[in-house]
Amino acid sequence: MHKNHNSLEEFKKYREKMNCKILASGNLQIQRFFNLDTRAYQEGALSSKVKELLGLVASLVLRCDDCITYHVLRCVEEGLTDAEFFEAFNVGLVAGGSITIPHLRRAVQRLEECRTLQPHPSRRRNDKR
Amino acid sequence: MHKNHNSLEEFKKYREKMNCKILASGNLQIQRFFNLDTRAYQEGALSSKVKELLGLVASLVLRCDDCITYHVLRCVEEGLTDAEFFEAFNVGLVAGGSITIPHLRRAVQRLEECRTLQPHPSRRRNDKR
Amino acid sequence: MHKNHNSLEEFKKYREKMNCKILASGNLQIQRFFNLDTRAYQEGALSSKVKELLGLVASLVLRCDDCITYHVLRCVEEGLTDAEFFEAFNVGLVAGGSITIPHLRRAVQRLEECRTLQPHPSRRRNDKR
Amino acid sequence: MHKNHNSLEEFKKYREKMNCKILASGNLQIQRFFNLDTRAYQEGALSSKVKELLGLVASLVLRCDDCITYHVLRCVEEGLTDAEFFEAFNVGLVAGGSITIPHLRRAVQRLEECRTLQPHPSRRRNDKR
Amino acid sequence: MHKNHNSLEEFKKYREKMNCKILASGNLQIQRFFNLDTRAYQEGALSSKVKELLGLVASLVLRCDDCITYHVLRCVEEGLTDAEFFEAFNVGLVAGGSITIPHLRRAVQRLEECRTLQPHPSRRRNDKR
Amino acid sequence: MHKNHNSLEEFKKYREKMNCKILASGNLQIQRFFNLDTRAYQEGALSSKVKELLGLVASLVLRCDDCITYHVLRCVEEGLTDAEFFEAFNVGLVAGGSITIPHLRRAVQRLEECRTLQPHPSRRRNDKR
Repeated sequence: MHKNHNSLEEFKKYREKMNCKILASGNLQIQRFFNLDTRAYQEGALSSKVKELLGLVASLVLRCDDCITYHVLRCVEEGLTDAEFFEAFNVGLVAGGSITIPHLRRAVQRLEECRTLQPHPSRRRNDKR
Repeated sequence: MHKNHNSLEEFKKYREKMNCKILASGNLQIQRFFNLDTRAYQEGALSSKVKELLGLVASLVLRCDDCITYHVLRCVEEGLTDAEFFEAFNVGLVAGGSITIPHLRRAVQRLEECRTLQPHPSRRRNDKR
Repeated sequence: MHKNHNSLEEFKKYREKMNCKILASGNLQIQRFFNLDTRAYQEGALSSKVKELLGLVASLVLRCDDCITYHVLRCVEEGLTDAEFFEAFNVGLVAGGSITIPHLRRAVQRLEECRTLQPHPSRRRNDKR
Repeated sequence: MHKNHNSLEEFKKYREKMNCKILASGNLQIQRFFNLDTRAYQEGALSSKVKELLGLVASLVLRCDDCITYHVLRCVEEGLTDAEFFEAFNVGLVAGGSITIPHLRRAVQRLEECRTLQPHPSRRRNDKR
Repeated sequence: MHKNHNSLEEFKKYREKMNCKILASGNLQIQRFFNLDTRAYQEGALSSKVKELLGLVASLVLRCDDCITYHVLRCVEEGLTDAEFFEAFNVGLVAGGSITIPHLRRAVQRLEECRTLQPHPSRRRNDKR
Repeated sequence: MHKNHNSLEEFKKYREKMNCKILASGNLQIQRFFNLDTRAYQEGALSSKVKELLGLVASLVLRCDDCITYHVLRCVEEGLTDAEFFEAFNVGLVAGGSITIPHLRRAVQRLEECRTLQPHPSRRRNDKR
C-alpha cells in the first residue's frame, strides 16, 4: 500500500465496528487492556495534548498507519498547530529514519483530510513557521 | 490500510501465484528456506496446533497482516476454538502492546470470514467462555 | 553484549527489586498493566505451558534477552523437554530470521543453567529426539 | 493488504505529490533530512548500485513495501540482473526471516512490473543462474 | 544484559569518545545527521521539554537502552517530575507492550541515579502523585 | 549496555561454543537454517564483499550488536576500506534513524579493534576520504 485507501469516516467506522466485536468476545483481559489504552492518554501530570503527541511519535517510529491516523485525529482535536505537527514528525523521522517516510506521507495526507473537515482556528493562531 | 481489502480466496490465490514465481526464480537457497518454513509447523515434539499458535502470536507481535491471515486459517483448520484464539491474541496484545490492535482488528475480521466459510464443529464444542 | 553476564539468581533479584520500585511509583495504570501481564499466562482455554511457549517465541522474535530468560525459566517449571524447547526455538528462528541467532545462543545458555540447577525429570521422559 | 494495489505510475505520482507537500511545510530540518536521504545513495567510495542494494535489503528486513518498491525501481535503473536481485532477496530473507515473505512477494510483483515497462538488456546478459 | 553495568559517568564518557571518532571519520553526511539529531530536540513550536519526552517514549517503544539513558538525563535537566516520568513511561508501556518492561526497569534505575546525583528541586514541587 | 564488554576473541569463542551446542541439540531444521545462513553470503552473482555489506547494513538497521560485530569482522577480511565502511554505516543510519547510533558507536569500536589486530593494507590504499 502506498496511500490511504479509505476516508477518515470509513476508518472510524471500521475501527469502531471491530473494537466492538473484540470487546464482545468475552475475553475480560482484552477488555481491560483496551481500557488501559484509553486511560493512558487522559489528562494527568502530563496534559492530554502532550500525551497524544507521545502517541503520535510512538506510532510513527513503530510505523503503524492506523495508529498514526488515530493520533493525528486526536491531536487535531487537541488544537495542535501545523508547526507543532511537523516538529513532532521531525523527531519521529530523525529517531526512526527514512523508513518512516512512507508513513509520514500518509500522516500528512490524514492531517490534510482533518484540516479540510474541521478547519481548527488554532491552526492559524500559533502557526508562525 | 485499515481493513482487509481482499477476500480470503483472493489472498490464497495471490499467495500461491507469487510463491510459484519466487520458487521458479531458480534461487536454490530461497527454495530451501521456503521448505524450512513449511516444516517448522509440522507435527513433532510439539503438535501442529501448538506450532500454528506460536506462528500466530509471532505474526501478531511482529505485526504482519498476511502472516496473521495465514496462521488464522491454519489454526481454524487445527480446530482452535474462539476462546483459545482470544487467549492467544491476548498474549500477543500484552507482549506487543496497543500497536498490535489494528492487526488484531484485521485478525478478528479474518477469523469471522473463516468461521462463515467453514463453521468448524469444535468452535461450539470446547468454547465455554 | 554477546553472553549473559549475570547468573540466573542475579537476574531474578534485579528483576524483583526493580519491579517493586516501579510498582511503588504510585502510577496505578502501570500496576494494572503488570497485573494483566501476569494474568495473560495463567491457565485458561489454553494451558499455562502453551502460553509460556507463546511468550517464549514472542520474546525470541522480538529479540528481548530478559523476556527470553524469564520464559525459559517458566517453561522449565512447566516441564518442557529439550526437544520441545528446540522446536519452539526453530519456529522463532524461521519466523524471525538469523538476526535472532545471538538471542538463541543466550537462550540455550539460560536453558543449560536451568537444567543444572533443577534437572527436571521430564527432560528425559518425553525427549526422544 | 496482500498485494500491491497501485501501479508503479500511481506509486510515483503519490510519492512525488506528498513529498512536495512535506517539503512545502516550511520545516527546514525535514527538508535537510530528505536531502541526506537522497545523498546517501550517490556514487562514492561505494557505487550507486551497491548502495541501492543496501537500501533494498534494509527495506526488506525492515519490511517497508514502499521503500522496497522505490529501491527495486532504482536497482532496475542500475542494471541489476534477476540473479543479483534474488541473491539480495535471499540475504534479506535469511536475516529477517519468514516474516519478510509477504514483502518478498510484493517485491517480486514490482520487479515484474519494472521488467515489463523497461526490459533492461542486462537482465539477460549476466543472468546465468 | 539485565541491568545497567556502567555508571552514568562511564556512559557519558564512552558516548562522547565514540561520537568524536565517528565525526572524525571524515564522512560529511554522518556529521550532518548528528547535527540534525541534536537540532530536533531544540526549543521551537514545541518546547525542549516536550521534545525530550517524545525522544524518551520513542526510545522506550524502540527499546534502545542507551537512547533511554540519554533522554532520561535530558528530561531530568528539563525539570521533569517523577509523576510526569511515570505517565510517559506508561504511554510507552501500553503502546509498546510488556516487551518494554526490561527497558523500563533500567530506565527507572537510571532515573534513580540521576536523582541521587542531582536532586532536582522540581521533583518535589509538582510531584503530587 | 553501552560499550562492548568483551574482546573480539571472547566474542568468537562464545559464538563458536554456543553454535556447537545448538547444532548438537539434534534439531535437524535448525542445523539446516544455520547452513542456509552461511551460504547466503557466499560468492555468487553478487560478490562476497557486497553480500557482507548487505549483512552489515541489515544488522545495523535491525540493531543487533553481535550480528554487526560478525559482519564488521567479515568485511575487514574482505578488504573493505574505512571510507566504504562509513558510507555503508551512513546508509544504515539514514534508513534506520538515530536509534541506530548506539550500535554505530559499538560498530566503530569493533572496527578499531579489527584494524589494530589486522591492519589490512587496503585500508590505506583506497581510503582517500
